[in-house]
This record gives sequence, C-alpha cells and structure tokens, in this order.
Amino acid sequence: MKILVTGGAGFIGSHLAEALLERGGHVVCVDNLRLGSKDLIRHCFDDPRFEFYEFDVCDTEKLGALFAERAFDRVYHLAANSDIQKSGADPAIDYHDTFLTTVAILDAMRKHNVKELLFASTSAVYGDKRTLLREDAGALSPISYYGAAKLASEAFISAYAAMNGLAVNIIRFPNVVGERLTHGAIFDFIAKLKANPRELEILGNGRQDKPYIYVADLVAAMLAMEYTAGVEIFNAGVETSTTVTRIADIVCEEMGLKNVEYKFTGGEVGWAGDVPRFQYDLAKIHAFGWTAGHTSDEAVRLAVRGSIR
Amino acid sequence: MKILVTGGAGFIGSHLAEALLERGGHVVCVDNLRLGSKDLIRHCFDDPRFEFYEFDVCDTEKLGALFAERAFDRVYHLAANSDIQKSGADPAIDYHDTFLTTVAILDAMRKHNVKELLFASTSAVYGDKRTLLREDAGALSPISYYGAAKLASEAFISAYAAMNGLAVNIIRFPNVVGERLTHGAIFDFIAKLKANPRELEILGNGRQDKPYIYVADLVAAMLAMEYTAGVEIFNAGVETSTTVTRIADIVCEEMGLKNVEYKFTGGEVGWAGDVPRFQYDLAKIHAFGWTAGHTSDEAVRLAVRGSIR
Repeated sequence: MKILVTGGAGFIGSHLAEALLERGGHVVCVDNLRLGSKDLIRHCFDDPRFEFYEFDVCDTEKLGALFAERAFDRVYHLAANSDIQKSGADPAIDYHDTFLTTVAILDAMRKHNVKELLFASTSAVYGDKRTLLREDAGALSPISYYGAAKLASEAFISAYAAMNGLAVNIIRFPNVVGERLTHGAIFDFIAKLKANPRELEILGNGRQDKPYIYVADLVAAMLAMEYTAGVEIFNAGVETSTTVTRIADIVCEEMGLKNVEYKFTGGEVGWAGDVPRFQYDLAKIHAFGWTAGHTSDEAVRLAVRGSIR
Repeated sequence: MKILVTGGAGFIGSHLAEALLERGGHVVCVDNLRLGSKDLIRHCFDDPRFEFYEFDVCDTEKLGALFAERAFDRVYHLAANSDIQKSGADPAIDYHDTFLTTVAILDAMRKHNVKELLFASTSAVYGDKRTLLREDAGALSPISYYGAAKLASEAFISAYAAMNGLAVNIIRFPNVVGERLTHGAIFDFIAKLKANPRELEILGNGRQDKPYIYVADLVAAMLAMEYTAGVEIFNAGVETSTTVTRIADIVCEEMGLKNVEYKFTGGEVGWAGDVPRFQYDLAKIHAFGWTAGHTSDEAVRLAVRGSIR
C-alpha cells in the first residue's frame, strides 16, 4: 500500500510514519520542515519503503508531480500549523499552513483519482462550548484561526468527498503528547525549568483543564480506521483531563525538582483563541472499537519522561 | 451610516443597495461584474449617497485602499459565485469567488477596525439532510463546492469575530427570486421558452422541491438584523416550497403558453451538488420578529412576472 503522510516530519506525523512502515506500508512523507525536523524521522531513512520530500504541500506543482509519479492508495493529511498561540497575531499562518494545505491535497486527490483520506482535525473546531462535545454538535463556532482553518478544511472535505466519491475519516484530535514533542505546555515547561529550575512562568491561572492523549494511542486510532465512501467524523481522546498546574507538577516531579515557584500570568485562558476546558463525548469511537490505553495524566507523564531523557 | 455592499451589482445586492439608500444610508458597492451588471443598479447612480467601484473583492490592495478612505460602519458581504451548477466542474470558482472574498473582507475589517458584518450564507451549508434544518444542526456536510465555500466562510467569520470583537449576522438564504434575476430555474425556463415555446427541457425529474423566497422579503430580513458582539446565525425562508415542475407551470401560465411539452433529463437531482429538497426550521427568525410576506409559489410568480415584463 502506497501512503502519503503530509507533515510526516512533525511530532505526530513521525510517529504515524513509523507505525505505517511497521505495518508494511510504503510511506512517502512530505514536510516543509517549518515545524517538523528531519531529526524526528532520521531513523526511518534506512528503510527502502520510506521516502522523504522537503517541500510545502501548497506547492501544487511539486505536489501534482508527486501524485503523478506515485499512485497513492491513501493520504494521511497532518500538515498544519500547530502553534495556535503564534497564529493569533497573524491569521495568514493558519490560512496557509492549516487550510490551504488541505485544499491542495483535495485537489491533487481529485485530479489523480486518489480516494482514501485521513484528516487530522481538532477539538478547536467546536469553539468554547462547555458541554460534552459530540461529533454532531452544531453550530460549530471556533474562536481561533487554527480552529477556523480546520473547520473550513472539514467543509471542503465534505464537498470534495460528495463530488468525487472519496472515503474519508476525520479524526478530531485533542491535545496530543508523547516523545518528540515540538511545542506546547510540556515542551515549554521543560525548556523553562532547564533554564531556571527555581521558578516557572505559567500562562493563565493554571486551571485550564484539557484531555491529553498519548501519541501512540492516537496513532492506533488512526490505523484502526476503515474506509468506505463518504465522510466519518470521530472524536479521539480520553475521558480524563489534566490541568496546566498538574502538568507543571508532573514535569517538576519527573525532573526531580522541588519547591519550584509557579508564577501565573493570570486570566482564564493562556492566550487569545485558547479554549480553556473541554471534554469529548467518545461514544462513537468507543463503539467503533478503539479506546485510549492511557489516561490524560499518564499521557502527560510519559511525554515528560520521553522529553527529558 | 457608511455601508459597503459587496456583490452590490448582483441580483440580491442591487435590491439591498436600493433599500439601504431608501433608509438614508451612504452605500458603497463593490462588484467585479462577472455575474453582476451595472444595468441592475444604474437607477442608483444619480443618488449622491451611492458609489460604485468595479473590482474584485479579492484584490486586497484595492479593497484595503477603499477601507482606508472610507470609515465603513458596516459591511454586507454578498459577493460570491451564484452558479452552483457551473462550479461543480471547477472547484476553483467557489474557492475564489465565494470563499476568498470572505477572507479578504474579514482581513480588511480586522485591519481597519470595522465591527459590523452581515454575511449572506446558504442552505447549501447543511448538505442533503432531509430533516427540518435548524441553525444548530450538525455535523454540517455540504455536497457542493459552493456550500463548502460558504461553510468555510462561516468558520473563519466565527474566529475573526472572537479574535476581533466583531458583531456578525449570518443569514442562510434559500433560493431567492424576484425582479432582475440573473440565473436559476426561472431565468433558464423563460429564456428556453422564448427560444422555443413548444417544449421545455427540465433538469432532473422535476420533483426537486425547495422553498423560494421573494427578494424584497429577504432584504427586509437583512435590514431587520441587530448587531451585538458575537455571531448570530439565522435561517431566512418560507415554510412553503415549490417543485421544479410547478415553476415550469407558473412560467408557462404567466407567459400565456399552453400545451408546452416538458422534457425531463431525469434523475432525482438537477446537477452534481444539487440538494433536491430541503426545508428550514424558521422558529429562530420568526421569534426575532421577521416573517416572509409571500409564500414560495407567490415568490416564484412575482419573479416570473418581473422577468417577462
């Protein structure tokens, strides 16, 4: 099976590429290396079934040439901006990296008759709802450009699927953590504490409370999907959650630091566009047969251990 | 009040511009005249409170200059592709005309601190649901590029509103008819019957059954909206509907034609991406205080009369 993984040199993409190779796939990764890094997938380079191309998915000429050369059976489209905080000041980042990449992939699939797609969506499409989030919730009202770009991607996927007979699984990711993190609270806390192990600045009031999924559990969900014509949307997550202060505690514990002074910047949200708390209804994906193997706290701890090693 | 109407030389935009002038507004229309026409608004040209600019809303340089010169109080964003059938063969049409125009408007509003927006959305965002369509229905699954481009626009509106404190009303239009039609079944039937009054080709099986709203009723809904921070979504429509065959009957009646032979192309839908039947839940906009003054059949008949005169 010939598989394209966009964002394949990113945090989640690199884990997915590895897992697909293990299952015997031929894996082609495309990544512009703006957020990803060759270091994350260097261990795949010796595998003759692995190929890596450095270019931007929005480069439709290069993307078209790749689709023309390879007869892909399936695309895992993970390429996106992953730094929501940064893009708050410049909507063009998510417009280009998160949304336009999706349109480029859909158009290449349409032109080259590729039918199967897995799309990495996000809890951010729901906005700040404060109710148990079900896949069929409406109206969706994202509060970040990132969430808008993912929801807009879902909209175009729906039409491209209907017009071209695509078989698509959309998985709405929560916060994802694990080895090879490239950004986020755990990543930031470790960096800050390495620089100054006596105090830690925490964005917001620390009470933001979100589900964190272990990357290997999420990869298992991605691999479990089945492909039939149409679009299926799944929340993938855990029923537990972890506050930002609890993340700080776990990081300090695992780094062997005691009496670290937490300095909160204050406010309910960490940054403009931040959704401070949410929880998924997971009935659909559980009924499908997938359940995460780790709680949110366990995922955070594994991620910290994998990052400070 | 200084108002920008995009798509102001189009069918609905021209009626809106007129009504806004009547209410004492200063109205600036922008239209690329790809689907619109100066003929539709020529009668406004003598009004000193009316200005017309011919350029594409996606021309961000010209749009930015206009926003810099005028301190707009409100934007009515109607510019879009309106020929769903045509864009089925080329998704780039709706991508550019329907979606990119919205992003251009949102970005200009953000940069020039304009807060109030009315956005012309569509029943096509729902997809082919076959249930009474409520504004909070989910997950939305458009089956046309047009519906996708409008839903993607709604997604970006949600984020821009949250990040920039916009006050937005989104009105999801059904089929809109009236004087100065530029496309659609009524427009096509009249043209075909003028060419050949003995027979009429009808796309699909003629049983497509949709609500048609009279343009003046829709303009009244647009003018009734109130603007407070956040996004409100309203279906605007009628509780009645009209089949395509019934439209043909009304056109023939009004044109004084008898025994016209209908030739159906067959199939449940008129074209790829067509939603053959839908009906709105109108509780929200009725509770707000607006109700359409004409039934679907009445709207169709008024449109036919206005078009054959």
